[in-house]
Amino acid sequence: MRTTTGWQVDGPTAPLRRTSLERRDLRPDDLAVRVDYCGVCHTDLHAVRGHDGEAGRPLVPGHEFTGVVTEAGPAVTRFSVGDAVAVGNIVDSCGDCAMCRAGQENFCHTFPTLTYGGADRHDGSATLGGYSREYVVREGFAYALPAGLDPAAAAPLLCAGVTVWEPLHSSGVGPGTRVAVAGLGGLGHLAVKFAVALGAETSVVSRSSDKADDACRLGARGLVVSTDPEQMADARDRFDVVIDTISAPHDLGPYLRLVAMDGTLSLVGHLGPVTVETMDLLVGRKKLSSAGSGGRPATAAMLDFCAEHTITADIELLASSRVNEALDRLGRNDVRYRFVLDMSDLD
Amino acid sequence: MRTTTGWQVDGPTAPLRRTSLERRDLRPDDLAVRVDYCGVCHTDLHAVRGHDGEAGRPLVPGHEFTGVVTEAGPAVTRFSVGDAVAVGNIVDSCGDCAMCRAGQENFCHTFPTLTYGGADRHDGSATLGGYSREYVVREGFAYALPAGLDPAAAAPLLCAGVTVWEPLHSSGVGPGTRVAVAGLGGLGHLAVKFAVALGAETSVVSRSSDKADDACRLGARGLVVSTDPEQMADARDRFDVVIDTISAPHDLGPYLRLVAMDGTLSLVGHLGPVTVETMDLLVGRKKLSSAGSGGRPATAAMLDFCAEHTITADIELLASSRVNEALDRLGRNDVRYRFVLDMSDLD
Repeated sequence: MRTTTGWQVDGPTAPLRRTSLERRDLRPDDLAVRVDYCGVCHTDLHAVRGHDGEAGRPLVPGHEFTGVVTEAGPAVTRFSVGDAVAVGNIVDSCGDCAMCRAGQENFCHTFPTLTYGGADRHDGSATLGGYSREYVVREGFAYALPAGLDPAAAAPLLCAGVTVWEPLHSSGVGPGTRVAVAGLGGLGHLAVKFAVALGAETSVVSRSSDKADDACRLGARGLVVSTDPEQMADARDRFDVVIDTISAPHDLGPYLRLVAMDGTLSLVGHLGPVTVETMDLLVGRKKLSSAGSGGRPATAAMLDFCAEHTITADIELLASSRVNEALDRLGRNDVRYRFVLDMSDLD
Repeated sequence: MRTTTGWQVDGPTAPLRRTSLERRDLRPDDLAVRVDYCGVCHTDLHAVRGHDGEAGRPLVPGHEFTGVVTEAGPAVTRFSVGDAVAVGNIVDSCGDCAMCRAGQENFCHTFPTLTYGGADRHDGSATLGGYSREYVVREGFAYALPAGLDPAAAAPLLCAGVTVWEPLHSSGVGPGTRVAVAGLGGLGHLAVKFAVALGAETSVVSRSSDKADDACRLGARGLVVSTDPEQMADARDRFDVVIDTISAPHDLGPYLRLVAMDGTLSLVGHLGPVTVETMDLLVGRKKLSSAGSGGRPATAAMLDFCAEHTITADIELLASSRVNEALDRLGRNDVRYRFVLDMSDLD
């Protein structure tokens, strides 16, 4: 086994604790990656708060990170030592099912192996995430980090980025499409950047006008204040695609009413059940969908697009020793727009 | 005022009662229609059972009927006395909003005027439905009944028919599309006929195999038994479009799992809230939609399609005096597949 250092969760309220971790010895198609930067995702917060410290399985969060290859197994063909790479929220899948064959490993019928909190397909060991200085990953689930992208600001692309890329891309968003992004946070600000770069007429929907300047700076045409009934009424039926990135439970009706005839409300970053009035779908023949993460081809395409348009996340970079502060502030939505941990303090 | 005879609801449990009804004098663009045949829709049953007899507003159900023009106002241009016509579940709309201008009067922003239980846009009087011998309707909301279609069996096309036509048509169902119709009732059997005639590979999903012969007779390739976990697992991800016509509340998860990558589950004939697990949408990038009724262009296109393919409903034709029996049996789903009332006994 290999030894590294990382930040481990001991229970739902205990602070994350710096500790020594084991990584597997490299299999033939494995890479060892020195983790330089790891984004802090809402999923990490859910995982920490939902973790039962007594359950026996260690938890190390982190599933959007960038780094450098430090060692490669003998069967590795796509990467060499020194290459800049990125890893997202899945690190393996069955490879055989219809979804995997279609390049949608994120929908693998046997469920994809998650970057943390999953079980390795060979030895059953718990996968431990990117809040650590080293990760060992099959080369097939690592991506070349394009030159020209800041590796710290690129880390959030691997989860937040592809999560919002998927619904924009699969809806065919492009010039002429009217897109609204509800919620301007880690996911939302990347959705705005992507939609604008895709050529869409892009608006932001937010609870207040506080973020109007940011919305414009990101390229949006304007901001609709969701708490203002008049503005919401004016925006009725106006958007072909509404990307709803609001993480707290909320009534979907007002957001469905923003969707134009035959358009789609896409929920991202939600998990669990949602309730919708069928009349809100029926009137205007609207569709409800949900997105989260992406398959390997979509992830690679998103990174290419980011390189072409020089898109990365707007981040606050913190030393990894400040991970608990980052999680606390994320829990209060006090971040513009994504925390990224600098792992070099783990050396 | 004009006088006719019809079947009126006095309360949620009282039988419908034959009574004399008033119709408005013809306005310039009105038709008087002798109602010959009126279908019995689930909506009628909901309206009857939900009716408070004390509320003061009379209720006469019926919103899918065929008949003959007996008189035409001076501004009528499209119809003459003696023409066979059909009327569906809306009889007016604002004509000005974006939806009306797009030919989706069923989504009129001011809400369309319903054929019964609505309020006339000119005098505010309660609209009384097609369980009667005469109806007065703006010519713009009457459709020419194509020659060659049996007028009794054609009546259900005007509500049940267009309701399932809409999601099939707007989804672009055609040769090569894999369609499943869940629930083989009044809506479902027409959905199967349409999907088959559109060239789709069509299956039925039903609680038991009782209707397998009917499904095949209607042109379906097979029947999936929804209570058989093995059959449902085999059918996973298999259909581009699933039309869910099941009228009782039910878990949408099993039906979403039948939908193929990027496909749609369309709920028809539902009203009210439904709950869906976002994971069931997310995995396979599936969409949820809902349909009910259609605009005027879609209704006319559906009737043309029916004429071309000689499609009508499979009906049980009853004298209108048996309306209470029809509603009772409909409440027990004891009909194959649509009751139609013969109004000639009202003369």
